Amino acid sequence: MGRVSNTPRGVSPTSFFTDHYELTMVDAARKAGTADRKAVFELFARRLPAGRRYGVSAGQGRFLEGLAEFRFDDEHLGFLSDHHVVSDDMLNWLAEYSFSGDIYAYAEGEPYFPNSPIMQVEATFAEAVILETYVLSVHNYDTAVASAASRMTMAAGGRPCIEMGSRRAHEESAVAAARASAIAGFASTSNLAAGFRYGLATAGTAAHSFTLLHDTERSAFEAQVDAMGRETSLLIDTYDIASGVRNAVEVAGPTLTNVRIDSGDLLEEAHHVRRLLDDLGNTNTGIVVTSDLDEYAIAGLRSAPVDSYGVGTQLVTGSGAPTASLVYKMTTREDHHCNWVDVAKRAQGKASRGGRKYAARRMDNGVATAEVVTTGQAPDWDTNHRPLLVKMVDGGEINTQYTGSTAVEDAAAHHEQAVAELPSAARRLQDGEPAIATVFELQ
Amino acid sequence: MGRVSNTPRGVSPTSFFTDHYELTMVDAARKAGTADRKAVFELFARRLPAGRRYGVSAGQGRFLEGLAEFRFDDEHLGFLSDHHVVSDDMLNWLAEYSFSGDIYAYAEGEPYFPNSPIMQVEATFAEAVILETYVLSVHNYDTAVASAASRMTMAAGGRPCIEMGSRRAHEESAVAAARASAIAGFASTSNLAAGFRYGLATAGTAAHSFTLLHDTERSAFEAQVDAMGRETSLLIDTYDIASGVRNAVEVAGPTLTNVRIDSGDLLEEAHHVRRLLDDLGNTNTGIVVTSDLDEYAIAGLRSAPVDSYGVGTQLVTGSGAPTASLVYKMTTREDHHCNWVDVAKRAQGKASRGGRKYAARRMDNGVATAEVVTTGQAPDWDTNHRPLLVKMVDGGEINTQYTGSTAVEDAAAHHEQAVAELPSAARRLQDGEPAIATVFELQ
Repeated sequence: MGRVSNTPRGVSPTSFFTDHYELTMVDAARKAGTADRKAVFELFARRLPAGRRYGVSAGQGRFLEGLAEFRFDDEHLGFLSDHHVVSDDMLNWLAEYSFSGDIYAYAEGEPYFPNSPIMQVEATFAEAVILETYVLSVHNYDTAVASAASRMTMAAGGRPCIEMGSRRAHEESAVAAARASAIAGFASTSNLAAGFRYGLATAGTAAHSFTLLHDTERSAFEAQVDAMGRETSLLIDTYDIASGVRNAVEVAGPTLTNVRIDSGDLLEEAHHVRRLLDDLGNTNTGIVVTSDLDEYAIAGLRSAPVDSYGVGTQLVTGSGAPTASLVYKMTTREDHHCNWVDVAKRAQGKASRGGRKYAARRMDNGVATAEVVTTGQAPDWDTNHRPLLVKMVDGGEINTQYTGSTAVEDAAAHHEQAVAELPSAARRLQDGEPAIATVFELQ
Repeated sequence: MGRVSNTPRGVSPTSFFTDHYELTMVDAARKAGTADRKAVFELFARRLPAGRRYGVSAGQGRFLEGLAEFRFDDEHLGFLSDHHVVSDDMLNWLAEYSFSGDIYAYAEGEPYFPNSPIMQVEATFAEAVILETYVLSVHNYDTAVASAASRMTMAAGGRPCIEMGSRRAHEESAVAAARASAIAGFASTSNLAAGFRYGLATAGTAAHSFTLLHDTERSAFEAQVDAMGRETSLLIDTYDIASGVRNAVEVAGPTLTNVRIDSGDLLEEAHHVRRLLDDLGNTNTGIVVTSDLDEYAIAGLRSAPVDSYGVGTQLVTGSGAPTASLVYKMTTREDHHCNWVDVAKRAQGKASRGGRKYAARRMDNGVATAEVVTTGQAPDWDTNHRPLLVKMVDGGEINTQYTGSTAVEDAAAHHEQAVAELPSAARRLQDGEPAIATVFELQ
């Protein structure tokens, strides 16, 4: 027995969040003289999760923050050497690695559709392929959460949504989920690390255990109001909801901010609680509902006297689609004469479209009508097209406008605007086709 | 434009992977004089994911590693102060925080059932409740993955499974998933950070982009074999599978270790490829299959000439159950006379059973027949009962036997043995009831 001292939780450089084969492929390509061929890799989804009308692209800012530190230190190079993962020549190359290419991407918070070219990475094969696993991990999770979150805020129709799913996801996923949900319109999060890292507003009430710790519900409410004032949420369903409401009002008086209901038939309970609060004179006390909400449950409470929604499990697990299934594919590369060759594999069910892509949203009187994707010459978009790819990395220089806390705020503003542009079909929760079609055009 | 310097990826102390309300509850309880009441919190699942016969408990080792560093540093205390999350008195308490209680838990890799008391945390209310979010995040994800992984290795019936899902999960979840899958019998992982942190065997082949980088499939195979030797896996489905096999055999000869098929009808293709390899004299070359496999697809390939399975998306997303839905509830506490009072909330659909729990698996001739859970006196189990709770933390001292790389190996060995004890119903993939019932007994 003794304190754990030599088994730290483990903090990895972003470069090690990677698959073994990314490094061995570069090693082999270097030996074959093909590693420095220029190439373009594309991040895209072949399809949206079943029935979804749109997805929301997210993760770009977090990816850029990780890209800035994507390096191989001596300790990790030592691991690769000890385990004979790559050759000595490759170890030297990794020691010097720093991304020097260009990256264009959809803005964070931008809706996307099947085959939207969400990111274009332009570099040598070696520099671009080595980012593959990390690009995908970050964007697949963050995009899955933002896509689900966007449907929830839409269903909530302006009532605030609070992210409280940390406990149902890996501890680091929880922080990313809080960030992605803020981009898709959530008002606050329970997660303190997300508050610390990204400046998100954090919020909290109390758990059933807090009520159970005290000898009576009333003494628990007194303890909470003594410590936190009346601008708090009292959890009223540990024993009996009607008694809970009465105790809350007696303890906190008419200026109590919120009561929270976390169980039962929320639609019915919300009506009961509202009537009781009003009868007791607490007409300004709001009702927060929680308890395994998803976008359908939120929509189902539209007619209920609910003031805000706390959403957990279904948010952090992407509401049925826990990964966005984005892929990262090489679409064009130079040959040994330095001529560009568009490439595409023909594997069954996994075919891809070759060539560097450009994209714009076609607009008609402020309403999106198509996702236009082109290859060939860079197009000169007319005013009916809103270009979608922005340059985030220029010759290895990361544009800091797209990182940090400010980027999250900007992305949230962009998301609100860009979702409002979508046709009304996007606002349907029922399963259906993507809200706009993706149209390929050759320039 | 400039390099990102002031927005690090963010490394949080484990204490900040927490919900805002954990801290405010302790603050309020301290003011009310109830924070130091002794309490027991229990980690359990009300039910298994729909249709599952058993779950596999995982995350304990990772949790203990994080518990060893669960402290509040000045920078994070400053954040709590600046944002008025808690009182000054609470900040002082947090600055001194270090867990000093006892923790008993199921061994990592142990099967669990509805209401199995997977972990018992015995401490003051304050010390125990503050761990809630972190306990849940770690165990909910790791347990979800281990539970899915166990069904996959069972379906694979001894053929090796390779974890390759990193790209479909948050980058840190990916490392935890690799660790959890190793506990549930996976042979290796593609994830380098998991190799570095936990000593797991890492493995890799090559991607379609590697083939497409080269002017011909043959030159790609030559590059790979030149760099990595014949003990490699050649990916044969970029263009045409039959040509792929011929090219692989021509380039690598009869001692090629593996070919990999990543698309199409795997059952049919595996038979074609096996026949062709045999006809060409490569009778010792194995076949690796990948492409959105889950436990059902693996079982469906039982009759196919497949040598190993690469599993990605479905593994890291828990094969339909991306969180284990474990909860952490206070079950007993002292009152103001220091008498123990069992507690249980009555919230609809969320009722819990009060009292500190003990648990054992009842055995009959080496086969498990029930999950026995007791409260009251500590039971004296007879030889037909295998006790399930082991002491992992004693007065704040973490038993290092349950942390680090060795713990992963031990857990994998325990998982194999403990799953073999389950009745045959556990081996059915079809939806059904838990393989054994959970029986409550009062001692």
